[in-house]
Amino acid sequence: MIKKYMEEALKEANKAYKIGEIPIGCVIVRNNRIISKTHNLKEKKHSSLCHAEILGIKKISKKLKRWRLYDCEMYVTMQPCPMCASAIKQSRIGKVYYGVKNENNKISKMIFDSNDNNEQVEVVSGILEDECKKIVQKFFENKRK
Amino acid sequence: MIKKYMEEALKEANKAYKIGEIPIGCVIVRNNRIISKTHNLKEKKHSSLCHAEILGIKKISKKLKRWRLYDCEMYVTMQPCPMCASAIKQSRIGKVYYGVKNENNKISKMIFDSNDNNEQVEVVSGILEDECKKIVQKFFENKRK
Repeated sequence: MIKKYMEEALKEANKAYKIGEIPIGCVIVRNNRIISKTHNLKEKKHSSLCHAEILGIKKISKKLKRWRLYDCEMYVTMQPCPMCASAIKQSRIGKVYYGVKNENNKISKMIFDSNDNNEQVEVVSGILEDECKKIVQKFFENKRK
Repeated sequence: MIKKYMEEALKEANKAYKIGEIPIGCVIVRNNRIISKTHNLKEKKHSSLCHAEILGIKKISKKLKRWRLYDCEMYVTMQPCPMCASAIKQSRIGKVYYGVKNENNKISKMIFDSNDNNEQVEVVSGILEDECKKIVQKFFENKRK
């Protein structure tokens, strides 16, 4: 199931790719059902806030009418940036699976590992890592051309 | 002017206080004019994302139709959390003035001080510190009662 959910996140990343956004996709799962599918829309929405993870949290909080999302799991193709890592923790999402590491985001790991306000999150990396890496590499290679 | 803008942020914090939200307020200034006033709405909006700073960035990106906010200054009553600090940096906001330190947010300072992707932000602390501290203390004292 973990791979299946990451495949769905990859489909979202591909949607971002097709419209010229950095290809990152995210799905949120609750009770073994996908309840949110989002992808990066930073350029389209003219907003640094529109990362796939933030859009997912926004959607689910609205749907469930609560900010505590302890019963939700997130699948995201790339390691969340510090903004998203902190948003995930503050939303009390229980578990995060991600595909590929972002070498610029050492602070994200610190945020996930920190233990403030009883916020705890389990983080699993390397799910479909090659596929998640390839789509981002392809994006930046095309940009450079 | 710095104090005047922080007074406006304090008025926003007071609006949050009155509706039972953690009292944090934020104003964004561009060309010497206030272009956004927001306050924490986490409980009301059922969303961890609805911090005063995030709501401000969202508002301004929408208004200016761009995510690069290098010509904007932010005035916020409390030191931004890691989510907000990272959002501020990624939005390229040039300068942040805040009132009172948040002792739980050591990672925020690291985020502000880090120098990824040419994002740089000048941070000035301690503006109307006592007033910004008092309203938060009052809020938590009442909570405990």
